[in-house]
Amino acid sequence: MTQNIYDNPDFFSAYAALPRSREGLEGAPEWPSVRALLPPMRGLRVLDLGCGYGWFCRWAREAGAASITGVDVSAMMLARAAELAGDPAVTYLRADLETFAPSGTFDLAYSSLALHYVVDLGRLFAAVNGALAPGGAFVFTAEHPLFTAPRRPGWVRDAEGRATWPIDSYLIEGPRVTDWLAPDVVKQHRTIGTLLTVLLRAGFVIGHVEEWGPTDAQVAERPALAAERDRPTFLIVAAHKPPNGTIERQ
Amino acid sequence: MTQNIYDNPDFFSAYAALPRSREGLEGAPEWPSVRALLPPMRGLRVLDLGCGYGWFCRWAREAGAASITGVDVSAMMLARAAELAGDPAVTYLRADLETFAPSGTFDLAYSSLALHYVVDLGRLFAAVNGALAPGGAFVFTAEHPLFTAPRRPGWVRDAEGRATWPIDSYLIEGPRVTDWLAPDVVKQHRTIGTLLTVLLRAGFVIGHVEEWGPTDAQVAERPALAAERDRPTFLIVAAHKPPNGTIERQ
Repeated sequence: MTQNIYDNPDFFSAYAALPRSREGLEGAPEWPSVRALLPPMRGLRVLDLGCGYGWFCRWAREAGAASITGVDVSAMMLARAAELAGDPAVTYLRADLETFAPSGTFDLAYSSLALHYVVDLGRLFAAVNGALAPGGAFVFTAEHPLFTAPRRPGWVRDAEGRATWPIDSYLIEGPRVTDWLAPDVVKQHRTIGTLLTVLLRAGFVIGHVEEWGPTDAQVAERPALAAERDRPTFLIVAAHKPPNGTIERQ
Repeated sequence: MTQNIYDNPDFFSAYAALPRSREGLEGAPEWPSVRALLPPMRGLRVLDLGCGYGWFCRWAREAGAASITGVDVSAMMLARAAELAGDPAVTYLRADLETFAPSGTFDLAYSSLALHYVVDLGRLFAAVNGALAPGGAFVFTAEHPLFTAPRRPGWVRDAEGRATWPIDSYLIEGPRVTDWLAPDVVKQHRTIGTLLTVLLRAGFVIGHVEEWGPTDAQVAERPALAAERDRPTFLIVAAHKPPNGTIERQ
């Protein structure tokens, strides 16, 4: 089973204090870039993998989605999501993404910053592909491998006082244990190449790959975001299932 | 015009001493991974962008390609390529990849470690797409953005003596001036995301993205290659033009 750090009360409290927890999608600086990749939501059947508080589920509903299924492993997150919801078109399911098998058919699968907890991404991507209608979209964000790679993550000052990010072990994939909001949080480091290879093998066509950086306006508002330009934190990918359901090859 | 550092005699001499120059494809550790992505060569019309000494052109001919066009901006490289060749099916052209417009139709476009010199990659990729037959393949390597990104590239020892690679400016694309074999070599830094976006916009379907690392056998033979696992140098991409000549979209 995936580590369920979100049901650790200390972690949950710290997570609840993040801008993206307090302010929802508007508190997530990468959200405008993600939103630009989403199809028109009206009438769509939406699956949200790692829905957390359900901010995206509620946004999708307001944007006209026909039905939304939010999945999360954390009982505490889902309890909070349920508090904030109450729409019969929104269903929350507690499930582990290592074993989750979607039932039903979806037009859009979405996932925000959850996939770096999943060990068996090939299984999950194949399950998502199987649950999508032909032509269906899969849009997700994950932590960038530059962020997850180092054995000792953290900015280092060089001789001139300039901050650099000490990369090592970039091609050595697998678990990374960090102290992020709580001790011993386990994330799965994998390269962009591996992530895209797993996606292609699951039958997806790659539509967009973005290593997210802030706009000048975002940096003016939140100067700390400038560090993203030195070392990005977020990877954004859009893919789709071919309209005929299988990959067109030469 | 792209900087033509290869016609600098000092650079040329230093380049000639590299294993990949002396030993050809077998001296390039990434070659087995690249070769695995190539289509069966028999009967193919092949375009090699940045052919250098022509090692790949000769390999392609020996592997059964019907015709090979090798393009390079360096007169000194092409003179050396001509020395080693003499096959009427192999044509060498001197051209700058910033402005090169292929004539004829090709089944495979190939490029090894040349694209990081090209400023206007969108123009070149569109030209390559236009010159490929429907279903044609485009397989290339480029320097990995982790290698090109830093303002001060070079391994740094941390407090425990472990080597790390100091990343900064990763999202700040554009020229990087380094001393590689000669002073003031200008390479174009761009992210994986940008490279793939330019490829998609040019009409290609992405088939494979690999951040190259050595096998255990390669590390046993050349221990210095182990550092690639900490910070890869090579990116390998395979794409193709859709069989019907245009991108299939939902």
